[in-house]
Amino acid sequence: MSTRDRILDHNLAVIHLHGIQGLRADRTILDLGITKGALYHHFAGKDELGLAILDERVAPQARAPWREMLADNGYVVDILRRYFDGIVTRSTSESIARGSVLGNLLAEMAPLDERYRDRLQAIVAEMTEAATTLLLRAREEGELRSDVDVDALGTWLVASIEGVQTVAKAHQSQEHLRRGFDGIMVCLEGLQR
Amino acid sequence: MSTRDRILDHNLAVIHLHGIQGLRADRTILDLGITKGALYHHFAGKDELGLAILDERVAPQARAPWREMLADNGYVVDILRRYFDGIVTRSTSESIARGSVLGNLLAEMAPLDERYRDRLQAIVAEMTEAATTLLLRAREEGELRSDVDVDALGTWLVASIEGVQTVAKAHQSQEHLRRGFDGIMVCLEGLQR
Repeated sequence: MSTRDRILDHNLAVIHLHGIQGLRADRTILDLGITKGALYHHFAGKDELGLAILDERVAPQARAPWREMLADNGYVVDILRRYFDGIVTRSTSESIARGSVLGNLLAEMAPLDERYRDRLQAIVAEMTEAATTLLLRAREEGELRSDVDVDALGTWLVASIEGVQTVAKAHQSQEHLRRGFDGIMVCLEGLQR
Repeated sequence: MSTRDRILDHNLAVIHLHGIQGLRADRTILDLGITKGALYHHFAGKDELGLAILDERVAPQARAPWREMLADNGYVVDILRRYFDGIVTRSTSESIARGSVLGNLLAEMAPLDERYRDRLQAIVAEMTEAATTLLLRAREEGELRSDVDVDALGTWLVASIEGVQTVAKAHQSQEHLRRGFDGIMVCLEGLQR
């Protein structure tokens, strides 16, 4: 792995737990055993590093499951149920406490820095568009009622997935995480034809 | 207003924007024109202050709307619609970017400090219990279908409200906030008898 990738991966983990405020050049140098020159060769400063992590790690990770779900031709409600099951099954009490890196960054950085906010907005907009497309397909194929407002539901679906993960952080339990996703499924099933 | 209350209010605003990591004794002294002795007389350190803000400001603010909604004898779906309308109507682009102080603190502190996590967990549990009670009443009075899983829905409702506010932080727009809450309403209306 390149030094640049090692720096990005290491600090993605730092951000996940301590936020952008937790980025420290001296810790990166120490933890990775690299020189100060090597770090600054790749990233001129803390914000160059933070924004690169958003562009090259957070955005692709946020995009990936939605691309997969859009490529799946099965029933939309089943696709979403499998997606939620996967999140719950892979989770540990530590990962639940860390939560969604996207949700954490929205909480921390949206009001503080326009450069971060613009990127976060683009990520959320892309996820919302994917969710809306998926729900529109479900409506067109007769899985959901023909009168559901898919724009409102797409915005809500992305928001509730983040919300379930945010609230579960306090409980650190798979059970709480699962119950939140079960609630989303109850709603989706209520909108089935 | 007492010095203690002034310190709590001032730093609630600081936390809302910069998190617990943003608490600074020197700024409090400067901003409020008080002595270091006065500050430390009331709060022995940063965490005493942070935890007092959780107990005496964040928890009561989180509890208040749920108490009001539980005391309202109208239709539950209407009560929730009015609650969401109120949040949207009172919001500004600045308040939307700041988001929910509870959501922000869950993002920041849940994985870092057990004392904060325990309090956040108690707040979320109380809100979830209130939401579940409200939905149970709606089910018993025939507003919602008799087969809805109110435990899953109560967890989901609190999580979705936090999620809508978290995701709207990136957009800073009333329209995005409203669309998220509209999505919650679409779900609730789908569960009506």
